Amino acid sequence: MNFLEEKILIDGVIKPGNILKVDSFLNHQIDIDIIRQIAYEFKRRFKGTEVNKVLTIEASGIAIATLLGDLYDVPVVFAKKSETANSTDDKYVAEAYSFTHKKLNNVFISRPYLHATDKVLIVDDFLADGQAAHALIDLVHQAGAEVAGIGIAIEKGQQIGGKLLREEGYHLESIAIVESMDWEKQTIRFREQDGADLTQARISAE
Amino acid sequence: MNFLEEKILIDGVIKPGNILKVDSFLNHQIDIDIIRQIAYEFKRRFKGTEVNKVLTIEASGIAIATLLGDLYDVPVVFAKKSETANSTDDKYVAEAYSFTHKKLNNVFISRPYLHATDKVLIVDDFLADGQAAHALIDLVHQAGAEVAGIGIAIEKGQQIGGKLLREEGYHLESIAIVESMDWEKQTIRFREQDGADLTQARISAE
Repeated sequence: MNFLEEKILIDGVIKPGNILKVDSFLNHQIDIDIIRQIAYEFKRRFKGTEVNKVLTIEASGIAIATLLGDLYDVPVVFAKKSETANSTDDKYVAEAYSFTHKKLNNVFISRPYLHATDKVLIVDDFLADGQAAHALIDLVHQAGAEVAGIGIAIEKGQQIGGKLLREEGYHLESIAIVESMDWEKQTIRFREQDGADLTQARISAE
Repeated sequence: MNFLEEKILIDGVIKPGNILKVDSFLNHQIDIDIIRQIAYEFKRRFKGTEVNKVLTIEASGIAIATLLGDLYDVPVVFAKKSETANSTDDKYVAEAYSFTHKKLNNVFISRPYLHATDKVLIVDDFLADGQAAHALIDLVHQAGAEVAGIGIAIEKGQQIGGKLLREEGYHLESIAIVESMDWEKQTIRFREQDGADLTQARISAE
Protein backbone atom coordinates (compact mmCIF):
# COMPACT_ATOMS: atom_id res chain seq x y z
CA MET A 1 0.00 0.00 0.00
CA ASN A 2 1.42 3.40 -0.89
CA PHE A 3 1.40 6.58 1.23
CA LEU A 4 -1.76 7.98 -0.36
CA GLU A 5 -3.73 4.75 -0.03
CA GLU A 6 -2.66 4.67 3.63
CA LYS A 7 -3.71 8.29 4.12
CA ILE A 8 -7.11 7.56 2.55
CA LEU A 9 -7.58 4.67 4.97
CA ILE A 10 -6.66 6.85 7.94
CA ASP A 11 -8.42 10.11 7.07
CA GLY A 12 -10.84 9.43 4.22
CA VAL A 13 -14.55 8.93 4.81
CA ILE A 14 -16.89 6.95 2.56
CA LYS A 15 -20.28 8.58 2.10
CA PRO A 16 -23.42 7.09 0.58
CA GLY A 17 -23.53 7.45 -3.20
CA ASN A 18 -20.01 6.19 -3.79
CA ILE A 19 -18.49 9.41 -2.48
CA LEU A 20 -14.98 9.42 -1.02
CA LYS A 21 -14.48 12.45 1.19
CA VAL A 22 -10.83 13.47 1.49
CA ASP A 23 -11.31 17.14 2.24
CA SER A 24 -9.41 16.88 5.52
CA PHE A 25 -6.11 16.62 3.61
CA LEU A 26 -6.58 17.06 -0.16
CA ASN A 27 -9.23 19.48 -1.33
CA HIS A 28 -10.39 21.81 1.43
CA GLN A 29 -7.88 21.49 4.21
CA ILE A 30 -4.48 20.73 2.68
CA ASP A 31 -1.94 18.49 4.40
CA ILE A 32 1.25 19.93 2.94
CA ASP A 33 3.29 16.78 3.66
CA ILE A 34 0.87 14.65 1.65
CA ILE A 35 0.73 17.15 -1.22
CA ARG A 36 4.52 17.26 -1.28
CA GLN A 37 4.68 13.45 -1.40
CA ILE A 38 2.15 13.47 -4.26
CA ALA A 39 4.36 15.92 -6.16
CA TYR A 40 7.48 13.79 -5.58
CA GLU A 41 5.60 10.66 -6.66
CA PHE A 42 4.54 12.30 -9.94
CA LYS A 43 8.13 13.41 -10.53
CA ARG A 44 9.25 9.81 -9.99
CA ARG A 45 6.57 8.25 -12.19
CA PHE A 46 7.17 10.71 -15.04
CA LYS A 47 10.95 10.37 -14.83
CA GLY A 48 12.45 10.77 -18.28
CA THR A 49 9.44 12.71 -19.55
CA GLU A 50 10.18 16.24 -20.72
CA VAL A 51 7.91 18.75 -18.98
CA ASN A 52 8.05 22.53 -19.31
CA LYS A 53 4.63 23.43 -17.92
CA VAL A 54 2.30 22.06 -15.26
CA LEU A 55 -1.41 22.53 -15.95
CA THR A 56 -4.38 22.06 -13.67
CA ILE A 57 -7.90 23.40 -13.25
CA GLU A 58 -9.13 25.57 -10.39
CA ALA A 59 -9.45 25.08 -7.53
CA SER A 60 -8.36 21.88 -5.80
CA GLY A 61 -5.60 20.95 -8.26
CA ILE A 62 -3.69 24.16 -7.57
CA ALA A 63 -1.88 23.04 -4.42
CA ILE A 64 -0.53 19.88 -6.10
CA ALA A 65 0.38 21.81 -9.26
CA THR A 66 2.20 24.47 -7.23
CA LEU A 67 4.47 22.01 -5.41
CA LEU A 68 5.04 20.05 -8.64
CA GLY A 69 5.90 23.22 -10.56
CA ASP A 70 8.31 23.98 -7.73
CA LEU A 71 9.96 20.55 -8.18
CA TYR A 72 10.23 20.86 -11.97
CA ASP A 73 11.04 24.58 -11.76
CA VAL A 74 8.55 25.32 -14.53
CA PRO A 75 5.53 27.66 -14.68
CA VAL A 76 2.16 26.45 -13.48
CA VAL A 77 -1.07 27.38 -15.24
CA PHE A 78 -4.53 26.81 -13.85
CA ALA A 79 -7.45 26.80 -16.24
CA LYS A 80 -10.38 28.87 -15.07
CA LYS A 81 -14.03 27.94 -15.01
CA SER A 82 -16.84 30.14 -16.12
CA GLU A 83 -20.52 29.45 -16.58
CA THR A 84 -20.91 31.97 -19.34
CA ALA A 85 -19.40 31.80 -22.79
CA ASN A 86 -16.78 34.49 -22.53
CA SER A 87 -15.32 36.26 -25.47
CA THR A 88 -13.01 33.72 -27.03
CA ASP A 89 -10.73 36.10 -28.92
CA ASP A 90 -7.83 35.83 -26.49
CA LYS A 91 -8.67 32.51 -24.85
CA TYR A 92 -8.69 28.83 -25.56
CA VAL A 93 -12.09 27.55 -24.43
CA ALA A 94 -13.36 24.01 -23.83
CA GLU A 95 -16.46 22.58 -22.22
CA ALA A 96 -16.62 20.28 -19.22
CA TYR A 97 -19.69 18.91 -17.53
CA SER A 98 -19.42 18.89 -13.76
CA PHE A 99 -21.24 15.92 -12.26
CA THR A 100 -20.66 17.40 -8.80
CA HIS A 101 -22.39 20.68 -9.63
CA LYS A 102 -24.58 19.25 -12.38
CA LYS A 103 -23.81 21.97 -14.88
CA LEU A 104 -21.76 22.59 -17.97
CA ASN A 105 -18.74 24.81 -17.38
CA ASN A 106 -16.61 26.61 -19.86
CA VAL A 107 -12.97 26.05 -19.04
CA PHE A 108 -10.47 28.50 -20.43
CA ILE A 109 -6.84 29.51 -20.58
CA SER A 110 -5.58 32.85 -21.88
CA ARG A 111 -3.67 32.25 -25.09
CA PRO A 112 -0.32 33.68 -23.95
CA TYR A 113 0.02 30.95 -21.32
CA LEU A 114 0.01 27.94 -23.65
CA HIS A 115 2.47 27.67 -26.53
CA ALA A 116 2.90 25.20 -29.38
CA THR A 117 6.29 24.29 -27.91
CA ASP A 118 4.87 23.38 -24.49
CA LYS A 119 5.16 19.88 -23.09
CA VAL A 120 2.38 19.92 -20.55
CA LEU A 121 1.97 17.72 -17.51
CA ILE A 122 -1.70 17.84 -16.52
CA VAL A 123 -2.44 17.21 -12.84
CA ASP A 124 -5.55 17.07 -10.73
CA ASP A 125 -6.73 15.79 -7.38
CA PHE A 126 -9.48 13.50 -8.71
CA LEU A 127 -10.31 11.61 -11.89
CA ALA A 128 -13.81 10.22 -12.28
CA ASP A 129 -15.51 10.54 -15.66
CA GLY A 130 -12.61 12.51 -17.07
CA GLN A 131 -14.58 15.61 -18.07
CA ALA A 132 -12.04 18.03 -16.59
CA ALA A 133 -9.05 16.07 -17.92
CA HIS A 134 -10.50 15.96 -21.42
CA ALA A 135 -11.24 19.69 -21.33
CA LEU A 136 -7.62 20.37 -20.34
CA ILE A 137 -6.34 18.07 -23.11
CA ASP A 138 -8.57 19.94 -25.56
CA LEU A 139 -7.05 23.28 -24.46
CA VAL A 140 -3.50 21.92 -24.83
CA HIS A 141 -4.28 20.68 -28.33
CA GLN A 142 -5.93 23.97 -29.32
CA ALA A 143 -2.59 25.62 -28.54
CA GLY A 144 -0.77 23.04 -30.66
CA ALA A 145 1.07 21.90 -27.54
CA GLU A 146 1.79 18.36 -26.37
CA VAL A 147 0.33 16.45 -23.42
CA ALA A 148 3.42 15.02 -21.70
CA GLY A 149 1.31 13.09 -19.24
CA ILE A 150 -1.56 13.16 -16.79
CA GLY A 151 -1.00 12.83 -13.05
CA ILE A 152 -3.95 12.14 -10.78
CA ALA A 153 -3.94 11.79 -7.01
CA ILE A 154 -7.08 9.64 -6.68
CA GLU A 155 -8.74 7.86 -9.60
CA LYS A 156 -12.18 6.39 -9.19
CA GLY A 157 -11.48 3.16 -11.03
CA GLN A 158 -15.09 2.21 -11.64
CA GLN A 159 -15.79 5.37 -13.56
CA ILE A 160 -14.93 5.79 -17.20
CA GLY A 161 -12.29 8.55 -17.18
CA GLY A 162 -9.17 6.47 -16.58
CA LYS A 163 -10.20 3.78 -19.06
CA LEU A 164 -10.82 6.35 -21.80
CA LEU A 165 -7.57 8.22 -21.23
CA ARG A 166 -5.52 4.99 -21.29
CA GLU A 167 -7.28 3.81 -24.46
CA GLU A 168 -6.53 7.17 -26.04
CA GLY A 169 -2.86 6.47 -25.39
CA TYR A 170 -2.11 9.05 -22.73
CA HIS A 171 0.49 8.34 -20.08
CA LEU A 172 -1.81 8.45 -17.09
CA GLU A 173 -0.50 7.92 -13.58
CA SER A 174 -2.93 7.73 -10.69
CA ILE A 175 -1.36 7.35 -7.28
CA ALA A 176 -4.40 5.69 -5.73
CA ILE A 177 -7.03 3.91 -7.82
CA VAL A 178 -10.20 3.12 -5.92
CA GLU A 179 -11.76 -0.06 -7.32
CA SER A 180 -14.69 -0.25 -4.96
CA MET A 181 -16.04 1.18 -1.75
CA ASP A 182 -18.57 -0.14 0.70
CA TRP A 183 -20.28 2.58 2.63
CA GLU A 184 -21.92 0.33 5.22
CA LYS A 185 -18.76 -1.59 6.03
CA GLN A 186 -16.53 1.46 5.41
CA THR A 187 -14.20 -0.70 3.35
CA ILE A 188 -12.27 0.35 0.28
CA ARG A 189 -10.42 -1.68 -2.35
CA PHE A 190 -7.52 -0.23 -4.32
CA ARG A 191 -6.33 -1.45 -7.74
CA GLU A 192 -3.03 -3.26 -7.63
CA GLN A 193 -0.17 -1.12 -8.96
CA ASP A 194 3.57 -1.77 -9.34
CA GLY A 195 3.11 -5.39 -8.39
CA ALA A 196 1.72 -4.51 -4.97
CA ASP A 197 -0.95 -6.71 -3.50
CA LEU A 198 -4.50 -5.85 -4.24
CA THR A 199 -5.50 -3.96 -1.18
CA GLN A 200 -8.72 -4.09 0.70
CA ALA A 201 -8.99 -2.51 4.08
CA ARG A 202 -11.28 -0.85 6.50
CA ILE A 203 -11.29 2.92 6.75
CA SER A 204 -10.51 4.06 10.27
CA ALA A 205 -11.97 7.55 10.21
CA GLU A 206 -15.68 8.25 10.40
CA MET B 1 11.44 49.04 -4.80
CA ASN B 2 10.81 45.46 -3.67
CA PHE B 3 10.76 42.28 -5.80
CA LEU B 4 7.02 42.29 -6.30
CA GLU B 5 6.83 45.96 -7.29
CA GLU B 6 9.62 45.25 -9.78
CA LYS B 7 7.79 42.22 -11.14
CA ILE B 8 4.60 44.27 -11.56
CA LEU B 9 6.56 46.86 -13.53
CA ILE B 10 8.06 44.19 -15.77
CA ASP B 11 5.09 41.89 -16.32
CA GLY B 12 1.96 43.70 -15.14
CA VAL B 13 -0.39 45.42 -17.56
CA ILE B 14 -2.67 48.33 -16.71
CA LYS B 15 -6.11 48.08 -18.31
CA PRO B 16 -8.79 50.76 -18.55
CA GLY B 17 -11.02 50.91 -15.47
CA ASN B 18 -8.18 50.86 -12.95
CA ILE B 19 -7.46 47.19 -13.61
CA LEU B 20 -4.00 45.76 -12.95
CA LYS B 21 -3.51 42.53 -14.86
CA VAL B 22 -0.93 40.25 -13.28
CA ASP B 23 -2.21 36.95 -14.59
CA SER B 24 1.09 36.15 -16.28
CA PHE B 25 2.67 35.42 -12.89
CA LEU B 26 0.16 35.58 -10.03
CA ASN B 27 -3.36 34.41 -10.72
CA HIS B 28 -3.62 32.37 -13.92
CA GLN B 29 -0.09 31.47 -14.86
CA ILE B 30 1.98 31.11 -11.69
CA ASP B 31 5.63 32.09 -11.53
CA ILE B 32 6.79 29.79 -8.75
CA ASP B 33 9.86 31.89 -7.93
CA ILE B 34 7.70 34.95 -7.30
CA ILE B 35 5.17 33.00 -5.26
CA ARG B 36 8.00 31.55 -3.19
CA GLN B 37 9.42 35.04 -2.59
CA ILE B 38 5.96 36.23 -1.54
CA ALA B 39 5.76 33.36 0.96
CA TYR B 40 9.22 34.17 2.38
CA GLU B 41 8.34 37.86 2.62
CA PHE B 42 5.18 37.06 4.62
CA LYS B 43 7.22 34.82 6.90
CA ARG B 44 9.66 37.71 7.45
CA ARG B 45 6.98 40.33 8.04
CA PHE B 46 5.05 38.15 10.48
CA LYS B 47 8.18 37.10 12.37
CA GLY B 48 7.34 36.58 16.02
CA THR B 49 3.66 35.97 15.26
CA GLU B 50 2.35 32.57 16.24
CA VAL B 51 0.64 30.86 13.29
CA ASN B 52 -0.78 27.34 13.25
CA LYS B 53 -3.00 27.58 10.16
CA VAL B 54 -2.87 29.40 6.83
CA LEU B 55 -6.24 30.36 5.39
CA THR B 56 -7.14 31.63 1.94
CA ILE B 57 -10.09 31.59 -0.43
CA GLU B 58 -10.29 29.71 -3.71
CA ALA B 59 -8.82 29.98 -6.24
CA SER B 60 -5.93 32.36 -6.77
CA GLY B 61 -4.78 32.52 -3.15
CA ILE B 62 -4.12 28.77 -3.03
CA ALA B 63 -0.65 28.82 -4.59
CA ILE B 64 0.62 31.44 -2.12
CA ALA B 65 -1.07 29.67 0.80
CA THR B 66 0.46 26.32 -0.21
CA LEU B 67 4.05 27.60 -0.26
CA LEU B 68 3.48 29.56 2.96
CA GLY B 69 1.98 26.51 4.68
CA ASP B 70 5.06 24.64 3.52
CA LEU B 71 7.32 27.28 5.16
CA TYR B 72 5.39 27.30 8.45
CA ASP B 73 4.78 23.54 8.29
CA VAL B 74 1.12 24.05 9.21
CA PRO B 75 -2.11 22.98 7.46
CA VAL B 76 -3.61 25.19 4.79
CA VAL B 77 -7.35 25.67 4.43
CA PHE B 78 -9.06 27.28 1.50
CA ALA B 79 -12.57 28.61 1.93
CA LYS B 80 -14.94 27.60 -0.83
CA LYS B 81 -17.36 29.76 -2.73
CA SER B 82 -20.90 28.84 -3.52
CA GLU B 83 -23.72 30.82 -5.04
CA THR B 84 -26.36 28.87 -3.22
CA ALA B 85 -26.97 28.84 0.50
CA ASN B 86 -25.81 25.36 1.41
CA SER B 87 -26.89 23.57 4.49
CA THR B 88 -25.02 25.30 7.30
CA ASP B 89 -25.15 22.57 9.91
CA ASP B 90 -21.56 21.47 9.36
CA LYS B 91 -20.14 24.66 7.91
CA TYR B 92 -19.22 28.19 8.89
CA VAL B 93 -20.75 30.46 6.25
CA ALA B 94 -20.14 34.13 5.46
CA GLU B 95 -21.15 36.38 2.60
CA ALA B 96 -18.83 38.24 0.24
CA TYR B 97 -19.80 40.43 -2.68
CA SER B 98 -17.56 39.94 -5.69
CA PHE B 99 -17.07 43.18 -7.61
CA THR B 100 -15.33 41.22 -10.35
CA HIS B 101 -18.26 38.89 -10.92
CA LYS B 102 -20.91 41.31 -9.64
CA LYS B 103 -22.60 38.79 -7.42
CA LEU B 104 -22.93 37.81 -3.81
CA ASN B 105 -21.12 34.60 -2.91
CA ASN B 106 -21.44 32.44 0.10
CA VAL B 107 -18.02 31.58 1.42
CA PHE B 108 -17.72 28.55 3.66
CA ILE B 109 -15.39 26.33 5.62
CA SER B 110 -16.30 22.93 7.01
CA ARG B 111 -16.34 23.15 10.77
CA PRO B 112 -13.68 20.50 11.48
CA TYR B 113 -11.04 22.64 9.74
CA LEU B 114 -11.21 25.68 12.02
CA HIS B 115 -10.77 25.35 15.77
CA ALA B 116 -11.07 27.79 18.65
CA THR B 117 -7.37 27.27 19.33
CA ASP B 118 -6.29 28.25 15.81
CA LYS B 119 -4.07 31.25 15.17
CA VAL B 120 -4.85 31.92 11.56
CA LEU B 121 -2.77 33.78 9.02
CA ILE B 122 -5.09 34.88 6.21
CA VAL B 123 -3.46 35.33 2.80
CA ASP B 124 -4.68 36.36 -0.63
CA ASP B 125 -3.33 37.61 -3.92
CA PHE B 126 -5.32 40.87 -4.02
CA LEU B 127 -6.99 43.23 -1.58
CA ALA B 128 -9.38 45.82 -2.97
CA ASP B 129 -12.61 46.49 -1.10
CA GLY B 130 -11.84 43.78 1.42
CA GLN B 131 -14.98 41.72 0.88
CA ALA B 132 -13.11 38.41 0.74
CA ALA B 133 -10.84 39.30 3.67
CA HIS B 134 -13.77 40.30 5.84
CA ALA B 135 -15.62 37.10 4.96
CA LEU B 136 -12.56 35.06 5.99
CA ILE B 137 -12.24 37.04 9.25
CA ASP B 138 -15.92 36.37 9.90
CA LEU B 139 -15.38 32.62 9.43
CA VAL B 140 -12.36 32.64 11.78
CA HIS B 141 -14.39 34.44 14.45
CA GLN B 142 -17.35 32.08 14.04
CA ALA B 143 -14.97 29.29 14.99
CA GLY B 144 -13.78 31.26 18.02
CA ALA B 145 -10.30 31.32 16.50
CA GLU B 146 -7.85 34.21 16.29
CA VAL B 147 -6.72 36.19 13.24
CA ALA B 148 -2.92 36.22 13.62
CA GLY B 149 -2.51 38.50 10.62
CA ILE B 150 -3.45 39.19 7.02
CA GLY B 151 -0.90 38.90 4.22
CA ILE B 152 -1.72 40.34 0.81
CA ALA B 153 0.43 40.26 -2.30
CA ILE B 154 -1.04 43.34 -4.01
CA GLU B 155 -3.23 45.89 -2.26
CA LYS B 156 -5.12 48.46 -4.28
CA GLY B 157 -4.39 51.40 -2.00
CA GLN B 158 -7.16 53.65 -3.33
CA GLN B 159 -9.84 51.16 -2.43
CA ILE B 160 -11.28 50.86 1.03
CA GLY B 161 -10.22 47.35 2.11
CA GLY B 162 -6.77 48.10 3.51
CA LYS B 163 -7.91 51.23 5.33
CA LEU B 164 -10.78 49.36 7.02
CA LEU B 165 -8.65 46.41 8.09
CA ARG B 166 -5.97 48.69 9.58
CA GLU B 167 -8.59 50.75 11.41
CA GLU B 168 -10.04 47.53 12.77
CA GLY B 169 -6.63 46.80 14.27
CA TYR B 170 -5.57 43.83 12.17
CA HIS B 171 -1.91 43.27 11.42
CA LEU B 172 -2.12 43.69 7.65
CA GLU B 173 0.96 43.31 5.48
CA SER B 174 0.69 44.06 1.77
CA ILE B 175 3.85 43.48 -0.21
CA ALA B 176 2.95 45.95 -2.96
CA ILE B 177 0.44 48.75 -2.40
CA VAL B 178 -0.69 50.42 -5.62
CA GLU B 179 -1.48 54.10 -4.93
CA SER B 180 -2.40 55.05 -8.45
CA MET B 181 -2.23 53.84 -12.03
CA ASP B 182 -2.42 55.73 -15.30
CA TRP B 183 -3.67 53.59 -18.11
CA GLU B 184 -2.73 55.99 -20.94
CA LYS B 185 0.82 56.54 -19.72
CA GLN B 186 1.09 52.97 -18.32
CA THR B 187 2.55 54.38 -15.10
CA ILE B 188 2.02 53.04 -11.63
CA ARG B 189 2.75 54.55 -8.22
CA PHE B 190 3.41 52.39 -5.16
CA ARG B 191 2.96 53.47 -1.54
CA GLU B 192 6.20 53.93 0.34
CA GLN B 193 6.93 51.06 2.74
CA ASP B 194 9.80 50.35 5.14
CA GLY B 195 11.29 53.76 4.47
CA ALA B 196 11.71 53.09 0.76
CA ASP B 197 11.22 55.94 -1.67
CA LEU B 198 7.77 56.46 -3.01
CA THR B 199 8.00 54.77 -6.32
CA GLN B 200 6.55 55.86 -9.62
CA ALA B 201 7.59 54.10 -12.76
CA ARG B 202 6.52 53.14 -16.20
CA ILE B 203 5.32 49.63 -16.83
CA SER B 204 7.37 47.88 -19.47
CA ALA B 205 4.98 45.18 -20.59
CA GLU B 206 1.99 45.86 -22.82
